[in-house]
Amino acid sequence: MRIVDIREQTGALQTSMRNAFIDFSQMTVSLVAVVTDVVRDGKPVVGYGFNANGRYAQGGILRERLIPRILAADPDTLLDETGDNIDPFAVFGAMMTNEKPGGHGDRAIAVAALDMAVWDAVAKIAQVPLWKLLADRFNGGNADGRVLVYPGGGYYYPDGNLNKLRDEMQSYLDDGYTIVKMKIGAADLATDLKRIETVIDVVGGDGGRLAVDANGKFDLETAIAYAHGMKPYGLFWYEEAGDPLDYALQAELANHYEGPFATGENLFSHQDIRNLLRYGGLDPQKDWIMPDPALAMGLTEGLKIIDTAEAENWPRERIVLHGGTQLALAMSAGLQLGGTETYPLMFQPYGGFADDTPIENGFTTLPDLPGLGIEGKAKLYEVMKPLGE
Amino acid sequence: MRIVDIREQTGALQTSMRNAFIDFSQMTVSLVAVVTDVVRDGKPVVGYGFNANGRYAQGGILRERLIPRILAADPDTLLDETGDNIDPFAVFGAMMTNEKPGGHGDRAIAVAALDMAVWDAVAKIAQVPLWKLLADRFNGGNADGRVLVYPGGGYYYPDGNLNKLRDEMQSYLDDGYTIVKMKIGAADLATDLKRIETVIDVVGGDGGRLAVDANGKFDLETAIAYAHGMKPYGLFWYEEAGDPLDYALQAELANHYEGPFATGENLFSHQDIRNLLRYGGLDPQKDWIMPDPALAMGLTEGLKIIDTAEAENWPRERIVLHGGTQLALAMSAGLQLGGTETYPLMFQPYGGFADDTPIENGFTTLPDLPGLGIEGKAKLYEVMKPLGE
Repeated sequence: MRIVDIREQTGALQTSMRNAFIDFSQMTVSLVAVVTDVVRDGKPVVGYGFNANGRYAQGGILRERLIPRILAADPDTLLDETGDNIDPFAVFGAMMTNEKPGGHGDRAIAVAALDMAVWDAVAKIAQVPLWKLLADRFNGGNADGRVLVYPGGGYYYPDGNLNKLRDEMQSYLDDGYTIVKMKIGAADLATDLKRIETVIDVVGGDGGRLAVDANGKFDLETAIAYAHGMKPYGLFWYEEAGDPLDYALQAELANHYEGPFATGENLFSHQDIRNLLRYGGLDPQKDWIMPDPALAMGLTEGLKIIDTAEAENWPRERIVLHGGTQLALAMSAGLQLGGTETYPLMFQPYGGFADDTPIENGFTTLPDLPGLGIEGKAKLYEVMKPLGE
Repeated sequence: MRIVDIREQTGALQTSMRNAFIDFSQMTVSLVAVVTDVVRDGKPVVGYGFNANGRYAQGGILRERLIPRILAADPDTLLDETGDNIDPFAVFGAMMTNEKPGGHGDRAIAVAALDMAVWDAVAKIAQVPLWKLLADRFNGGNADGRVLVYPGGGYYYPDGNLNKLRDEMQSYLDDGYTIVKMKIGAADLATDLKRIETVIDVVGGDGGRLAVDANGKFDLETAIAYAHGMKPYGLFWYEEAGDPLDYALQAELANHYEGPFATGENLFSHQDIRNLLRYGGLDPQKDWIMPDPALAMGLTEGLKIIDTAEAENWPRERIVLHGGTQLALAMSAGLQLGGTETYPLMFQPYGGFADDTPIENGFTTLPDLPGLGIEGKAKLYEVMKPLGE
């Protein structure tokens, strides 16, 4: 078998949402198709991938560096020992040829999109859902039949309307979610506390059903002020208070707030996640780390991140994957992680799960389709399909 | 005044050199020209920039994100308080609009190339050499009249020829350098020790005139084995033993080696450098950090890196800039840092200093030209000039 072509294009998102740092109306993503000569159901197998939200399309790096290296490699070196399927680790090695260590930023995003497409192809060739392939290859055949999901939402509306925030949160509850998340940090503390109280009211007065996300905006002083302000609510978690690389801030913040913390979506390698676990003062009994496999060099690096976390005594149940992709769902189920975020109102059509996947009591179930299950999400498949044809 | 256009193109390097990680024959760089409507000597001022070696051209990020944001900004917001020159901090802020924190990789490289061109234009408009502008604005008018330079060399030749290594090193001494540097880690320890001894012989038997660079290749065990093997030589420094983000490895290595360490070229933000200083166990009495302003978001971030280092009690004299660019020379002189690397045999025509700049006893002097001094390096100017026309 052979990878016969790898194609990429830039897709746009359409949303007026913003968080503490960025306006998403200009956001783009890279879409990738890995075309093989393996035929299943009468058609060549095509693996599809894309990067998650917030870090832009990476067409330059894909076209100039990653894709040509894979296509230039001896095709036999990219196959597993059976010779009948792709070896995704070999493909990862090929695309990273002549890349220096460190500097895990946009390259990691480009790798993530391409690696996702490779694993989609691998599972399709094996004719199993990706979650099952992961369970069988890396988790002793064990998988979770349902996965904890929560909506990443609670954005700042252009007009700061609390009723719109309330309606948004109610829509998540109506959809079957039990835990919700909202943005903080783009307003002052008093305004944000009012927003938080509004949402706590929507979730039945239980702060333990609400997570808040500062998107790395705060300096230590502000992070502590928010900690004091939010302490009475007993929130589900307090996410990414400071700069994602300021591990000392995160560690100091734990001296001022006893509730759970969550962070990690802006760390794009196992080395960076390891530093967070070494220096961030996080507590494996109550805190969460949230790498995003669709940003952080894909599933291949994701497996390394899980191994690294466990080597640092961090249990995989306390890894909740950022990004809300079908990849995150497959990894959460097949590797028995803590769950995954999703974005019902934005990052469409890329984020979210198959169309027929219900959310019930905050959990979702798994697709039966081979691969990631992109073909089961009609609007996503509509965008991806032409790239594979 | 206005920035009327910003142009970029990809330049190639031609070299057969390789280090422990990468083959440089495929390496590219981004070239940038910032065209203004300010006239000096009868011509519009054009600022030129490029990124340093090892991290590829970043045309995608420049064209899709950074350049359009600057050109879309209200031009008045990009000027300093006089209105007669660019405010490089404002331009930096404009290009980083809608960029998330963390993930300092390829984006940092793209920013570095563009930021270099902006500062070149700023100094040309002010009609002073950049080193003098830096001294006057940020260093109380103080500048070093000469700067410590050392050649980054000692690459692995395709045929492993020790005589070629010897000739290369002798050529540096003939050129006026006193300290030289060589690569290690792409051969086994015994072979590398033989290479090291060969070079020590060339520099008159004094290991204190030789630095070695592992380019982040070693795991802890190998790093320690090299430490033991190299201990007797009293080397100038032992550079980047392990993965650039493995601060714990660096800290542990200090328990096995008393000589000076150097690292930091693969950390592209002040946050990453701060983590190195917080967790890497480096000693400000003997060790060196070596950020590269032509990779790590330019001079603008470089000023932040210096401030951050000093806040972590790291003296600026122990910052030796990686990259061997005219920017690194200007910063070393005008901000009184420890010195800068240069690459006489590779990264041409981009690396290195003005054509008439002598190297004497390991030091170089400064250009009188306004800006970076690119116009004083004929082969570089030949490449850059068409982009500005």
